Amino acid sequence: MKTRAAVAWESKKPLAIEEIEIEKPKEGEVLLKVIATGVCHTDAFTLSGDDPQGAFPCVLGHEGGAIVVECGANVKDLKPGDHVIPLYIPECGNCKYCESHKTNLCQSISSTVWTGYMPDGTRRFSKNGNPIFHYMGCSTFAEYTVVPEIALAKINKEAPLDKVCLLGCGITTGIGAVLNTAKVEAGSTVAVFGLGGIGLSVIQGAVMAKAARIIGIDINAGKREMAKFLGATDFINPSEINGSISEYIKDLTNGGVDYSFECIGNVHVMRDALECTHLGWGVSTVIGVAGAGKLISTRPNNLVTGRTWKGTAFGGVKGRSQLPDYVNRYLSGEIEIDKMITHTLPLEEINTAFELMHQGNSIRSVIIF
Amino acid sequence: MKTRAAVAWESKKPLAIEEIEIEKPKEGEVLLKVIATGVCHTDAFTLSGDDPQGAFPCVLGHEGGAIVVECGANVKDLKPGDHVIPLYIPECGNCKYCESHKTNLCQSISSTVWTGYMPDGTRRFSKNGNPIFHYMGCSTFAEYTVVPEIALAKINKEAPLDKVCLLGCGITTGIGAVLNTAKVEAGSTVAVFGLGGIGLSVIQGAVMAKAARIIGIDINAGKREMAKFLGATDFINPSEINGSISEYIKDLTNGGVDYSFECIGNVHVMRDALECTHLGWGVSTVIGVAGAGKLISTRPNNLVTGRTWKGTAFGGVKGRSQLPDYVNRYLSGEIEIDKMITHTLPLEEINTAFELMHQGNSIRSVIIF
Repeated sequence: MKTRAAVAWESKKPLAIEEIEIEKPKEGEVLLKVIATGVCHTDAFTLSGDDPQGAFPCVLGHEGGAIVVECGANVKDLKPGDHVIPLYIPECGNCKYCESHKTNLCQSISSTVWTGYMPDGTRRFSKNGNPIFHYMGCSTFAEYTVVPEIALAKINKEAPLDKVCLLGCGITTGIGAVLNTAKVEAGSTVAVFGLGGIGLSVIQGAVMAKAARIIGIDINAGKREMAKFLGATDFINPSEINGSISEYIKDLTNGGVDYSFECIGNVHVMRDALECTHLGWGVSTVIGVAGAGKLISTRPNNLVTGRTWKGTAFGGVKGRSQLPDYVNRYLSGEIEIDKMITHTLPLEEINTAFELMHQGNSIRSVIIF
Repeated sequence: MKTRAAVAWESKKPLAIEEIEIEKPKEGEVLLKVIATGVCHTDAFTLSGDDPQGAFPCVLGHEGGAIVVECGANVKDLKPGDHVIPLYIPECGNCKYCESHKTNLCQSISSTVWTGYMPDGTRRFSKNGNPIFHYMGCSTFAEYTVVPEIALAKINKEAPLDKVCLLGCGITTGIGAVLNTAKVEAGSTVAVFGLGGIGLSVIQGAVMAKAARIIGIDINAGKREMAKFLGATDFINPSEINGSISEYIKDLTNGGVDYSFECIGNVHVMRDALECTHLGWGVSTVIGVAGAGKLISTRPNNLVTGRTWKGTAFGGVKGRSQLPDYVNRYLSGEIEIDKMITHTLPLEEINTAFELMHQGNSIRSVIIF
């Protein structure tokens, strides 16, 4: 069959909106109609050509809200009409990672997902007989896509897919980093470096964790208002202070914050984020994805004196078992999504979404098919 | 009054055994008769001149077993005749660090302890009227020393001071790193880099935590026997393998160890120790003290994929409240100390203890006064 899609034929070029071929789902796979998709910095990172795993041509996109159209053989828990969010980290339920309570990093299909193939090593997209790569196992920049069942979270049908699609990456990552990875306690002080969709969601998570002080940090002064709306108590524009941001924060917080989060992907900021935490118990969590070959560094004494350096992917959330609850928490008003959507655009204007993001003028654009 | 002491008049020179002056204890201070002291790599590090905080002339030593001789004004919980272990990390009981269950790093007197002074900013040691610096608040390389009460753990009098003195640093640091900092669970796999007194104590701690597999790593093949005696299941000599030690360990352990410990102070080994841990849940703890200005580094993806980088000082043990129990666990046979003492020497031969350590021919030398 055919599907409309935004195809990345090569890096650094605008996406091309066109009809491509999509094959029927094979064993364990599900054909989805994508209703809406967010546009995330990770899509832009891959499109930039800096992602060493980026494979072109491909269909990008990994923040989708979709409806099951057809199930391949041996699909067990889904049926046509079910509402789902595709997961770039699947949950097979059987591997040693799924069996561990310490991680969400199911590795059952990682060797194919991260190289642009379906689990059987083939691809479902093509144009004129030339195959097109999948992306992060999701490829939500297509009206129809094929995803393995183990990478689909079945969600409440009452949830609007053009909103909860954002739980497929950024918002869940930020909230999960606070609740699952750092385990912020009530009364804590928190610093959040970088207030894009993920950083703003860290603020949300910190509010949910009842943090007492939440410091948002961004060189874009326009982020202040949204940060405060979501619950930040302080906003710092590093370009307005003299000297080291980590020393500035330590002075502001009587020795440093209890928890910090890096939501940019800048290894220098990752160091600042670690070093602004409190002697004895500070925990810094890396969320941002750095460029290939970049290294983080610090004096080891910063660890020996009681700081902890961690990281998180998808906020430590096990997608099939935990994401449905995130959707319900949105429906109950506990998680804010609507105000994170600054632009809603048709597929034909998807390149505008990338431009808005690069200009720093959007939190999230949602593409409606 | 006078005391025999091993004085470090300057860096890089042998210690000089001589009589020096020691003042009476002031308010909150206690005069001790040191019965025995261990000789630790940290003493050697300071004596080498590489320790940026090293102040000369000084009386080194920080692994002491001692008896209270005289108490200054307002000493509350100690009396002459009490047996004590001096603490380079005190426990005042009142600061925000002591009130936190997350850290042992009491900061009540850190500004003076780490610059070689008593809490009131003066010194008790001198020779011919010229003051001599204290060291780590302990200065146990003197027959008599003065230590603040808040830096003294009162211990069971049945414990032989020439053995439990080693609980003043290395052995407690290693065991505490496992039990307090990393919180190793039963059934875990553990890698220990560097099998000096601390690394061997990490092995002990891993046995106490019921780890299933304990891999000792040292370039000195002579460490194998003691490592196995204490409970290591594997021994690796990195100079006998090809390629990266972290990749070697990952292959050996089906993806990496659950916990690793760096007990050397080498920033390259710290990276290996992190990178040999398992995707999703590996925790690496830095114990070794690196040279001034040295940096640790790694790709941030190693954290984003679920590894945690921590550090510990004195094994996270709060000295006054927790160290007495370590002494009792030695008395009950749960903690091995005797076999860690490879040499017992009189004060006059203390320079021999440093030589043995540099040659890698000792675990710990204990000096008897």
